[in-house]
Amino acid sequence: MKKDRISINVIRRLPRYLRYLDDLAYKGVSRVSSSEMGKQMGLTASQIRQDFSCFGEFGQQGYGYNVDTLRRHIGTILGMSELRSAVIIGVGNLGRALMGNFDFDKYGFSLVAAFDLAPNVIGTEVFGLVVRDGSNFENFISEHDVDIAIMTVPKRNAHSVAKKLAAAGIKGIWNFTNIDLGISDSDVIVENVHFSDSLLSLSYFLSCQENDTEGKN
Amino acid sequence: MKKDRISINVIRRLPRYLRYLDDLAYKGVSRVSSSEMGKQMGLTASQIRQDFSCFGEFGQQGYGYNVDTLRRHIGTILGMSELRSAVIIGVGNLGRALMGNFDFDKYGFSLVAAFDLAPNVIGTEVFGLVVRDGSNFENFISEHDVDIAIMTVPKRNAHSVAKKLAAAGIKGIWNFTNIDLGISDSDVIVENVHFSDSLLSLSYFLSCQENDTEGKN
Repeated sequence: MKKDRISINVIRRLPRYLRYLDDLAYKGVSRVSSSEMGKQMGLTASQIRQDFSCFGEFGQQGYGYNVDTLRRHIGTILGMSELRSAVIIGVGNLGRALMGNFDFDKYGFSLVAAFDLAPNVIGTEVFGLVVRDGSNFENFISEHDVDIAIMTVPKRNAHSVAKKLAAAGIKGIWNFTNIDLGISDSDVIVENVHFSDSLLSLSYFLSCQENDTEGKN
Repeated sequence: MKKDRISINVIRRLPRYLRYLDDLAYKGVSRVSSSEMGKQMGLTASQIRQDFSCFGEFGQQGYGYNVDTLRRHIGTILGMSELRSAVIIGVGNLGRALMGNFDFDKYGFSLVAAFDLAPNVIGTEVFGLVVRDGSNFENFISEHDVDIAIMTVPKRNAHSVAKKLAAAGIKGIWNFTNIDLGISDSDVIVENVHFSDSLLSLSYFLSCQENDTEGKN
């Protein structure tokens, strides 16, 4: 399997497939066709078949996909069975929201430490983790060979934190700072979360609906 | 402009184009070619030209796009100049993170009210808004003709809140609950934020890198 030959668009669709399949499994559905998936997900059946064919043969013509097999397979492709370690840098509102509500285990990550700079936060327990002194996270990361860091620090600290993370040997950063971290010359894989992309899509669809309504009046 | 004929994939790319163009403008770049954009964004030049052609003619062969014109145009398409009103339902950690850090104004939204159910939160001021009693947000929404609600409530409240929002005449919901709201029979446009999609992409790229490294050893 030549993973790195696969188009980024296919990769980005895999988590969506997984959510859809999880939902089917939850509802007790054991088999699904590419056309049924396409209808539900707003994709064509042939696109879905093409996407899955990048990773081998999952289905059988005219018979559909086995939901559980496909889920497991996509989960493995996405690295969910790797059991990676994660630390969170920045225990503000967003950091706490993730620590309290996001199911890291489900996606193959174990949250092993949380760091913050605020003296009144360091040493307190937040969702089962005692917050560590954020002025010295590098030692922890290199000693424990941590895989990823979740960056929920203020924008003004983003560059310096990213640089330190890279120097400490972090492999990936899940970046919530909405800032280009400026470490593209390193080997660190950065995944940026941009809330605005999603709000702007909503904004677009609202405009479409308004135009439609005006057209009917 | 037949907005609703445009593929969902094109729409989803528009906010990314906008971010890239904002970045160019910030750096003082006034003109960009589709091939330069493609290189930076991991798309082909022809895909970019095709995307933009859905909305009319922006560029000139061999001359590139004017960064400011293109930014304005994409912003208008995405409805950023509409000045819509938003309320936030759920002033927990995630709600506060958005209230404190997300630049609603920049994207054409005005955050006009925040609601919560917790007695010790109601009446307190959070980032300039006095939190209102969340047991009765419907009146506010219909009286003020609010456009969108940002749902940052616990999962267990997601269905009931969504139903009330729909009944109160909300037009769109920005849903952070990670739950299918079950109001697909209404006219409400729901935009779901799935943090896991992004983490799983990071997970995938980590796996690729590990495979590469193993290959070299």
